[in-house]
Amino acid sequence: MEPIALDEAIRQIGPADAEARRRAEARQLRLTKPPGSLGRLEQVSVQLAGIFATEKPRIRGRAVIVAAADHGVVAQGVTGYPQAVTGQMVQNFLKGGAAVSVLSRQLGVRQIIVDAGVASGIQDHPDLRRVSAGHGTGDITLGPAMSARQAEQCLTAGVNLAVEAARSGADLIAAGDMGIGNTTAASAIAATVTDKSPRETTGKGTGRTPEELDQKVAVVKRALAVNRPDPGDPLDVLAKVGGFEIGLLAGVVLGVSAMRRAVVLDGFISGAAALLAHLLCPAARDYMLASHRSAERGHQVVLAHLGLSPLLDLGMRLGEGSGAVLAMPIIEAASACLCEMATFDEAGVSDRDQKEAPLESPSP
Amino acid sequence: MEPIALDEAIRQIGPADAEARRRAEARQLRLTKPPGSLGRLEQVSVQLAGIFATEKPRIRGRAVIVAAADHGVVAQGVTGYPQAVTGQMVQNFLKGGAAVSVLSRQLGVRQIIVDAGVASGIQDHPDLRRVSAGHGTGDITLGPAMSARQAEQCLTAGVNLAVEAARSGADLIAAGDMGIGNTTAASAIAATVTDKSPRETTGKGTGRTPEELDQKVAVVKRALAVNRPDPGDPLDVLAKVGGFEIGLLAGVVLGVSAMRRAVVLDGFISGAAALLAHLLCPAARDYMLASHRSAERGHQVVLAHLGLSPLLDLGMRLGEGSGAVLAMPIIEAASACLCEMATFDEAGVSDRDQKEAPLESPSP
Repeated sequence: MEPIALDEAIRQIGPADAEARRRAEARQLRLTKPPGSLGRLEQVSVQLAGIFATEKPRIRGRAVIVAAADHGVVAQGVTGYPQAVTGQMVQNFLKGGAAVSVLSRQLGVRQIIVDAGVASGIQDHPDLRRVSAGHGTGDITLGPAMSARQAEQCLTAGVNLAVEAARSGADLIAAGDMGIGNTTAASAIAATVTDKSPRETTGKGTGRTPEELDQKVAVVKRALAVNRPDPGDPLDVLAKVGGFEIGLLAGVVLGVSAMRRAVVLDGFISGAAALLAHLLCPAARDYMLASHRSAERGHQVVLAHLGLSPLLDLGMRLGEGSGAVLAMPIIEAASACLCEMATFDEAGVSDRDQKEAPLESPSP
Repeated sequence: MEPIALDEAIRQIGPADAEARRRAEARQLRLTKPPGSLGRLEQVSVQLAGIFATEKPRIRGRAVIVAAADHGVVAQGVTGYPQAVTGQMVQNFLKGGAAVSVLSRQLGVRQIIVDAGVASGIQDHPDLRRVSAGHGTGDITLGPAMSARQAEQCLTAGVNLAVEAARSGADLIAAGDMGIGNTTAASAIAATVTDKSPRETTGKGTGRTPEELDQKVAVVKRALAVNRPDPGDPLDVLAKVGGFEIGLLAGVVLGVSAMRRAVVLDGFISGAAALLAHLLCPAARDYMLASHRSAERGHQVVLAHLGLSPLLDLGMRLGEGSGAVLAMPIIEAASACLCEMATFDEAGVSDRDQKEAPLESPSP
């Protein structure tokens, strides 16, 4: 299959199907339950109807794309773990011992593990996808993370991995990350795109003390002062203060949207990727589902900027796509209720007195 | 199998295994992730370790017991749906068209449908369990809901259904309800047990206007004034202002606890049942998992009283066990992470510098 270019993918992204959404909303009112009583499940089902352009959106396959890369900014002491952990965790994903691996196995989700730019060498493995744009980014307190060419390279790789996953039958595709130091890059991206201060977009990451947090905020400020990323130019933001895995996941968001599938965002890192994807193509917003609210501070700013409400709020802050995979059964359950529940007529169940509620009565 | 008497079940309920909890906590610190980064999943896994008395608690089967019954208080106009809907929904459960049926099918949960005291006749069905204690309760604004003998009968029926489900292989057992008018009974129970005013324990249910809510609060007040249930005597509370399905679900909570399985509470009605079970045997608290926060007002009071934090908060207010079934994949995922994730040693992943964090270092 010919690889798809980034601008071509972006051109393919159109808004979700408004008519299918309306039909799904009307169907929800005829199902055997009080209107609205399934809460967020109803909203999710309507969003899926719009994405899949049908009143009965059925989820077939599920996949999680876990992109790993390293970050030169770890030289500034922003994280509690050595850089080698990024590559070691990739091996752990491939062996099935990481959280996202266990969750994927448990919940029937295909794991797609991607070297987007890990610094250390990773042993060959049949399930490892190598689309590395470099051996870790540059230290963003000293200069740009990557070149413009590398930025486009990782975005394009993400688009094509998503297209391939969709063509292999995945209807729900999660965006997961692994990269020691990547909360620092995500904080810089979030501050740039949302125009908030680094104090508001920076959380503890794997750090533990208030002093570590203060130092990390200072590092993000320095990265922004040194690089001056242009908030109107997502490629510039990615190249100057981003990361290879973040660029790749932004590409995944675009590729999934172009294929009219649903992209399930994880936490702060995939949220930063979604910010870039949204800047590149605002219509991609229709295809995004926020799986959970991360305990990482900056995630709140990302969700608010994108206008997304997460399904779960479990105090998780792991990344890897763990929250996104965990939310998949709920998303699929939402579509199953819309598709498979009986209507009042079908079940012979008496609806409430419709005269009292003209606004809630089912559409014809 | 001989049926188990209520007091016998209560005698069998002991606290969860503290040593297994400690071992699970220590294991969580050795798994390949920053300590605490799986948030609530870690806490749930530790609770399951205590319940199943093992550091590696594995969930085999899952079941939801949906108990249905009618309420004489509907004569007071507290609900938007006719009483016939209770029996009609039981048929809908049996045919697989209700929300809980769809969710159970989707998520691999066995549905156990129980007539605990429906007013209308229900057609025979091989999957219907008939343990009816009467054809609907009495109107609690005029007198007691049921006799002391009926109260004990439905509690005992719930205990035995739970024991049977556990013996058939269910490790996670959800408590679901169906009963037009049952939020009124649950409000009366919650007000009595938690010593809050009916205004605080009463929500809209299926009603829609502020006037309907005011009327419902007045009905609950009248029920309490007429019956004067004794807050220290759970059987008295159940008999005077409860419901057959609520008593049955309280029995389910006790039966599951006696079998050392995990009981997954749904929303307000199963929460009211849990209040009664907790009064009958405080140790049952160790076996309870709160699946979701219902949009029904009084549920908040119930959760606070029991000290339970729900896993989901999706604005659902349907009952049937729908929220409980929806949370089951998350509960099972929590146990899978504890059981199956690799440790730092096993995976050859570098842990952070342990010198910095003596309190978080793994136990030997």
